[in-house]
Amino acid sequence: MSNPIQVYFQGTKGAYSEVAATRFFNKKVITTGLTGFEDLFAALDKAPDAYAVLPIENSLTGSIHRNYDLLLTGKVWIVGEVELQITYNLLGLDSNTELKEIWAHPVVLEQCRDFITKNPKYKIVPFFDSAGAAEVVIKNQRKDVGIIAGPQVALVYGLKTLTKGIEDNPMNFTRFLVLSKKEKIHPGPDAKSSLVFGVKNEPGILFRCLSIFALRNIDLMKLESRPIIGKPWEYIFYIDFQGSIAEERCRKAVEILEEIAVYYKFLGSYPVIKEQNHEYLGKKL
Amino acid sequence: MSNPIQVYFQGTKGAYSEVAATRFFNKKVITTGLTGFEDLFAALDKAPDAYAVLPIENSLTGSIHRNYDLLLTGKVWIVGEVELQITYNLLGLDSNTELKEIWAHPVVLEQCRDFITKNPKYKIVPFFDSAGAAEVVIKNQRKDVGIIAGPQVALVYGLKTLTKGIEDNPMNFTRFLVLSKKEKIHPGPDAKSSLVFGVKNEPGILFRCLSIFALRNIDLMKLESRPIIGKPWEYIFYIDFQGSIAEERCRKAVEILEEIAVYYKFLGSYPVIKEQNHEYLGKKL
Repeated sequence: MSNPIQVYFQGTKGAYSEVAATRFFNKKVITTGLTGFEDLFAALDKAPDAYAVLPIENSLTGSIHRNYDLLLTGKVWIVGEVELQITYNLLGLDSNTELKEIWAHPVVLEQCRDFITKNPKYKIVPFFDSAGAAEVVIKNQRKDVGIIAGPQVALVYGLKTLTKGIEDNPMNFTRFLVLSKKEKIHPGPDAKSSLVFGVKNEPGILFRCLSIFALRNIDLMKLESRPIIGKPWEYIFYIDFQGSIAEERCRKAVEILEEIAVYYKFLGSYPVIKEQNHEYLGKKL
Repeated sequence: MSNPIQVYFQGTKGAYSEVAATRFFNKKVITTGLTGFEDLFAALDKAPDAYAVLPIENSLTGSIHRNYDLLLTGKVWIVGEVELQITYNLLGLDSNTELKEIWAHPVVLEQCRDFITKNPKYKIVPFFDSAGAAEVVIKNQRKDVGIIAGPQVALVYGLKTLTKGIEDNPMNFTRFLVLSKKEKIHPGPDAKSSLVFGVKNEPGILFRCLSIFALRNIDLMKLESRPIIGKPWEYIFYIDFQGSIAEERCRKAVEILEEIAVYYKFLGSYPVIKEQNHEYLGKKL
């Protein structure tokens, strides 16, 4: 019997990142929640056989830019992607007690704005982590507090689901990257590849970079610019494209890009798992 | 004597947006702080002669994506840009009382992380608005609370400056857009222009769009992708370029882009003001 896979995620038990971790490996994994996204990279440095799960983009709010920045500085490879549908429920200790406060992460509050606007009687309290909020509610037996979190949080903490699906927009998906210290190129044509590059600030330079992909009919799935810290209004670009660098045309494209870029870093060619109705595979508390 | 110019900004008195407003018009303006960024657009609808100031990008944290989204839906023109250096001071009521708590906006806290890490004794309290935090500190005479805010906040609220320049990175600039209901094309070659477009999701399409600018030697200053709400992983693109559509080559470029885009919106050609050491020109309370 092989050892179980260790996966780090940011947040507390029941976070969507943990759901992504259990979904990607689809078998016995040990999931460990850490405080900050930076901590994931530090944890991998100490445990090179482990994996980390990092949310990178939400279909409503856009890219998580800080995590893009971490991919730039961190010495990791992307070895997979999990796309999960995000849904939010109102959870509480007791369905018979009237709620006075609602606790949730500011991003979650933002995504449930209609529900909050329609219920002005609740005092809204921003919380660092929705799952963390659940812990405090249970510890202090705050029956007057509702928390907004994914369905799995009710399961993990034994909370009651008071109202289901209170998110404004059901087309709410988050992409999570699976990170490893070890490069693992997924060869299939279903692979997705990611890289980051910087160019001199001269007219037409981005056009020339994109021509490398256009000439080879490689589909760019995403182009994201990020500021270079300390050089106001200069940017580096993150690119996702369809294909694997195990394929000749993709390998050639990235070689040429590396030639004309002043900065270049390949992040990985990896499989993508998409799931709308996920089941929570983690352990209950 | 003409009527003074009315400018709306998000936040409370002393916010950097208000500094940008007074700097851009450089004369007597009436500044009015509103709660949300959306409120700026509603205010302009009611007062078509007024202006609004909207922060759009910070050199460290990147674009303010929500405000990009508002430019898409709002019926406004960009008529100017102000770039301000952002610096943060620790402010308080009394330099002789030891602080127990620090209140600030989460983004401000993020930008002063070194200072906070070096001073773990303070309880950190996220606040919706640093200038708003100042109001509460004064109202409740909380001598034990320090707030992190721009130097102008001390001036506006009569607070003492306890520590100067506590931001991690002095290369901290924010770009603010000046918005109006009335189009006003700045003709000079020093102008900057902005537009937003969407394309069908097909290989090479972004490359073809950028070719329009590259062929005319028009310098793209910024390219920003934003998710299309309700269409996961489809994007629209915001472009800033050097030049005015009063110039022939720029006018032709945007005409061709409009031809091949499925969605196109021109946002304006406008002058840019950059200032490192600004003076607070607003009224003291």
